[in-house]
Amino acid sequence: MTTLLRRELGDVLRERRRAQGRTLREVSATASVSLGYLSEVERGEKEASSELLASICGALDLPLSQVLIDVSSRMAESEGLALTVALPVPSGDVVSASAA
Amino acid sequence: MTTLLRRELGDVLRERRRAQGRTLREVSATASVSLGYLSEVERGEKEASSELLASICGALDLPLSQVLIDVSSRMAESEGLALTVALPVPSGDVVSASAA
Repeated sequence: MTTLLRRELGDVLRERRRAQGRTLREVSATASVSLGYLSEVERGEKEASSELLASICGALDLPLSQVLIDVSSRMAESEGLALTVALPVPSGDVVSASAA
Repeated sequence: MTTLLRRELGDVLRERRRAQGRTLREVSATASVSLGYLSEVERGEKEASSELLASICGALDLPLSQVLIDVSSRMAESEGLALTVALPVPSGDVVSASAA
């Protein structure tokens, strides 16, 4: 069985909302999406468009990148994989190690 | 300006396909999606459904979690954020450090 992105994404969004002690009504109003739509997205029943996902993350005060990391982490677990992460490196910085 | 998920996702999918030296035609046939659809997804013009995204990742032999990590990393850069990653820990393993 394939783990579907929209299901993991919905779980992450719901957990994050509940961790903030906020209601569907409140977050949907802040995000300017209908309560029914947000509820369907959280249950993994509807694909969130990129624009509405950005609105929902904004209403939860969460960077979309962080939500995707949470989703990736959950999907990696269900895929039985370890994560390989490419971290952005500040430009111009050189890290050097020296032997004592 | 908001960075849209579908645009970053499209860029990642295209880069991964090109890195494999494969054509749109080949990957779309393997994924059982139309060439036009895959092309629109890669250009960030169409939202990929969770099912078709899973098919495309399967055709590219990439775990969806890895694709999402790449996307997260790009979005974090555009958001100017560092990533916080929760890595799955193998159950039962205890890591201990001892002083020499």
